[in-house]
Amino acid sequence: MTCEILSIGTELLMGDTVNTNASAVAKVLADLSIDSFYQTVVGDNPDRLKAAIETAFSRADMVITTGGLGPTYDDITKEIVAGYFGKKLVQDEKAIESINRLFDSLGRLMTENNLRQALVIEGCTVLDNEYGLAPGIYYEQDGKTVVMLPGPPYEMEPMLKNKLFPILEQRSGFTLVSKNIRIFGIGESRVEDTLYDLMTKSTSPTVAPYAKQGEVTVRVTARAINREAGLEIVDPVVEKIRAIFGENVYAVDTPNLQTALVETLKAKGLTVATAESCTGGLIAKKITEIPGSSDVFGYGVVSYANDAKMSILGVSESTLKKCGAVSRETAAEMAEGIQRLSGADIAISVTGIAGPGGGSEEKPVGLVYIGICGPNGTETHEFRLSRGRKDERAAIRENASQNALYLALKKAEAIKKA
Amino acid sequence: MTCEILSIGTELLMGDTVNTNASAVAKVLADLSIDSFYQTVVGDNPDRLKAAIETAFSRADMVITTGGLGPTYDDITKEIVAGYFGKKLVQDEKAIESINRLFDSLGRLMTENNLRQALVIEGCTVLDNEYGLAPGIYYEQDGKTVVMLPGPPYEMEPMLKNKLFPILEQRSGFTLVSKNIRIFGIGESRVEDTLYDLMTKSTSPTVAPYAKQGEVTVRVTARAINREAGLEIVDPVVEKIRAIFGENVYAVDTPNLQTALVETLKAKGLTVATAESCTGGLIAKKITEIPGSSDVFGYGVVSYANDAKMSILGVSESTLKKCGAVSRETAAEMAEGIQRLSGADIAISVTGIAGPGGGSEEKPVGLVYIGICGPNGTETHEFRLSRGRKDERAAIRENASQNALYLALKKAEAIKKA
Repeated sequence: MTCEILSIGTELLMGDTVNTNASAVAKVLADLSIDSFYQTVVGDNPDRLKAAIETAFSRADMVITTGGLGPTYDDITKEIVAGYFGKKLVQDEKAIESINRLFDSLGRLMTENNLRQALVIEGCTVLDNEYGLAPGIYYEQDGKTVVMLPGPPYEMEPMLKNKLFPILEQRSGFTLVSKNIRIFGIGESRVEDTLYDLMTKSTSPTVAPYAKQGEVTVRVTARAINREAGLEIVDPVVEKIRAIFGENVYAVDTPNLQTALVETLKAKGLTVATAESCTGGLIAKKITEIPGSSDVFGYGVVSYANDAKMSILGVSESTLKKCGAVSRETAAEMAEGIQRLSGADIAISVTGIAGPGGGSEEKPVGLVYIGICGPNGTETHEFRLSRGRKDERAAIRENASQNALYLALKKAEAIKKA
Repeated sequence: MTCEILSIGTELLMGDTVNTNASAVAKVLADLSIDSFYQTVVGDNPDRLKAAIETAFSRADMVITTGGLGPTYDDITKEIVAGYFGKKLVQDEKAIESINRLFDSLGRLMTENNLRQALVIEGCTVLDNEYGLAPGIYYEQDGKTVVMLPGPPYEMEPMLKNKLFPILEQRSGFTLVSKNIRIFGIGESRVEDTLYDLMTKSTSPTVAPYAKQGEVTVRVTARAINREAGLEIVDPVVEKIRAIFGENVYAVDTPNLQTALVETLKAKGLTVATAESCTGGLIAKKITEIPGSSDVFGYGVVSYANDAKMSILGVSESTLKKCGAVSRETAAEMAEGIQRLSGADIAISVTGIAGPGGGSEEKPVGLVYIGICGPNGTETHEFRLSRGRKDERAAIRENASQNALYLALKKAEAIKKA
């Protein structure tokens, strides 16, 4: 089976919107091993839209459209697709009800236009829209299948995942089971080299690494008749990869380092505090992104100025004079200071040179010290995070914050449960 | 003139990469008033690529490709395009030099593959690649123009802006001059309603609003024979719009609120400090994103816990008991506390309920208080930032941080220069 993705929207042609819908749909197709050789973007011009649909069906068995279901020009898109199949559009009762409910609750009069959103192809499977008014459409005829999804990503993505995916999965006759292994501190190319045999020789499960923001995710995926059978294929390979990369595997199926840290601290009844210089609040911001982080995080200080390092954290003037603000010694005293102040089980500190200014031959841009205080004293780590790129201030700060979260997580894992 | 965008890459078809290149190119075409009716994505299969190029040229005068210039399959893409025009590929000397220089500096032996990156269409205009090895191509023949740009966005975007844009601009015979008016605190629909006449009736300059992350940008653009002539058209309209929206216009051509704040503080020799609860470091992170922010920012506290509000900021226990952590009174004492501690001219505090938990009928999720201390005392502001969306913790934090930066900017503007 082959499938083409057809995205409809003038905002895409004008460059006002990035086509995240196409990549979200493409990922689902790739997961289901459905070949996809073309993606097309068109506007809401009827002739061009008609030509695009005919071209897509001349090459593929299935066409998934995104966009063009709203009240302004939905009639064009749906009518053109219905016309291709020689079918009529009919009102979907459930969609009409949602539209009426919305306008009642707003106390506004519904216009005729809005009812157009409830039109669907006669005989289709209606895909409910959990976050909007226009339902999606799944329709099959003479070996050709059309799927029509809404344009706004917050409507499209849940419909893709919760409504379309199960249909396509059932149609394929198997269930897809996958786990994501999160790896920190090893580059993508080393992960690829290490897993080369697994990646190239294993077809069930498949093993695929992805790099993002300084970490690598290895996705292990199997197709099976049900979830249990899938896990039987996936789990041993996950354990094998865990064993290969050891402590660099910081979690499986956890979205990021800050979530892993907050979950680990919660599970052990521990707390963390932060003292940041060059990351300027980024670590605290990441920790407090996580709902419920107030259980494990109470104190953060952004001591950008030396005065702040001394007055709030108690870093000694002589350390700052002798070793400088960017030094192992200052990092250690910052971490000890915030631990004293907060009483937290684990304290993280970061001091470094994020650039573009402030570097010297001895202490170049990208030099970062991270201090970690646990119950048994303080350790410090030196990093050199510059890669000589243009505008790398943001990258250095991001990388420093990730390293700090990783080190705090490792410290939390090493502490015995209270 | 019409132009199609053809993006080449299996990673796009697999959904591993979002096609930001297509929207970047589309935006440039829209700016230059070049019509673009189709965008296509294909992989590196020679037959499908050839078909896609022929189809694109059957509909458009110009085709801009992105991707497919790397050492692995660049020969396919460039050969197919050269074949379409009946031309040969030749080595670009300058590109060979860069490739040799790179391999020399790495001390590695260059393979034959790498030389393929230096191939260009005979007689074309070569577009230098400032951040990579493969040069871009601009080639015109018999009324058809092809432009080939590299795939990695950090190579593509500078080439698009610095090499291709000037060629297309010159070809169009005019210069594009635009200014971006940044507006905070007014919704997009109100901006649109207010500017309706200007937006619909004015063709030179054009006036277009864009909404992003709680602010609205109005872009005023004119085409003229040179920059001075363009500014003569743009500037009066910018001043008119400034007058309409008054203090809600926080800057022109400044990228964001934190940049405007840091620049204003620097120009006036002022400093700012932050005390954050629900934003958890986000405001400090935004301020310290800006290079050189250490001149104006030295102290930040993330007082997530009540203990931290008391011990570091000196918020009184009775205020916390009587009014609660989320109250005008606590916001005021937090701001006063960080001002006392830091000696900053302006102090910002934020306390609120970011959710999803922690809300009550009296103090619902989204209730946020911001305190601002200047040289003449403290003011507090109440916000209700919940919109009843799913997963809105991040949106509430973002919105609170933007409001705090805006209020600090207005305070800084009101202070007489030292």
